[in-house]
Amino acid sequence: MPHIKLPEGFPGIRGPMAFSPTTTKPLRELAEVLLHAPNTLSPGERELIATYVSSLNDCHYCQSCHGSTAAHHLGGNFELVDNVKQDFESATVSDKLKALLVIAGKVQKSGKAVTSEDVERARRQGATDREIHDTVLIAAAFCMYNRYVDGLATWAPRDFEVYRAIGAKTAKEGYLRPGGEEPIGQEIRS
Amino acid sequence: MPHIKLPEGFPGIRGPMAFSPTTTKPLRELAEVLLHAPNTLSPGERELIATYVSSLNDCHYCQSCHGSTAAHHLGGNFELVDNVKQDFESATVSDKLKALLVIAGKVQKSGKAVTSEDVERARRQGATDREIHDTVLIAAAFCMYNRYVDGLATWAPRDFEVYRAIGAKTAKEGYLRPGGEEPIGQEIRS
Repeated sequence: MPHIKLPEGFPGIRGPMAFSPTTTKPLRELAEVLLHAPNTLSPGERELIATYVSSLNDCHYCQSCHGSTAAHHLGGNFELVDNVKQDFESATVSDKLKALLVIAGKVQKSGKAVTSEDVERARRQGATDREIHDTVLIAAAFCMYNRYVDGLATWAPRDFEVYRAIGAKTAKEGYLRPGGEEPIGQEIRS
Repeated sequence: MPHIKLPEGFPGIRGPMAFSPTTTKPLRELAEVLLHAPNTLSPGERELIATYVSSLNDCHYCQSCHGSTAAHHLGGNFELVDNVKQDFESATVSDKLKALLVIAGKVQKSGKAVTSEDVERARRQGATDREIHDTVLIAAAFCMYNRYVDGLATWAPRDFEVYRAIGAKTAKEGYLRPGGEEPIGQEIRS
């Protein structure tokens, strides 16, 4: 049960987002620019970074939503998402993304854990300053979103189909949702 | 030296904020609504929560800026800020704020670390759902800001007077800064 009284029927972050529209606006805008807006890293790559950090933070709702969104961007490849979470160094992703995932994993522990060698590896694989910046901020942002979701003990559905539907919709529409938060039923039916 | 090439003369988060205006907009808006906009928790109380979390994350720039901002909101009481960082249970702050700082400290470790007992203690001291929500999100957000600052190895001035000037200006004007980021010289001279 959530630690505070949240509107019913909203899973994960959508409960506190419906509870608090003033904070939701910048939280959604940040997700949009980091994960969905045009970028030299594809939406699938950025969602994989978000999913990996959420899995390190053991946030069931976030890793399931963003894992599903990543999979939808990557042609429905849920197996690749699982492989990245379990052992990205042996997953079939680019060497550049592997190097960026190393940086993201360090940020999840602590900003200070990122080393010059980690950054140098990413550069050798062709990562730009912008891509390194965005990787650090995506990883940092998910250390926030994950704590927001779990720090309030929000409800995380266990049904995989819920996340499949959320991922399909988010991959298509992004994060701004001008209509506001949606309870879970609408997500599944739409 | 920062891990990526940032505009020169901008300390801490202002370097990457000047580098990346599209992400800076929601980051600044989030700080404004969490720390400076009207709230039943005073700006001083909210800045103390941000400072405490930043000290747990060992982020020199953030704990110094927000500690100074807190002190300016609290009549120039820098000693109280130090006491909260060192041992808030014996500091001269309200029992409600102490209970909220317990929650913030748990969020810094992991969202899952927050217990029903922690939340119950805050309620007994008069904390509302809104205040508990905001405490969780402030603590979560500083787990992001701190990692953004240190994950890019930004420059943190060591001169206390720099932070005194930043805190004075931020306490007065908040976080939106429509004129954009400022290099450090302007902050000190203004």
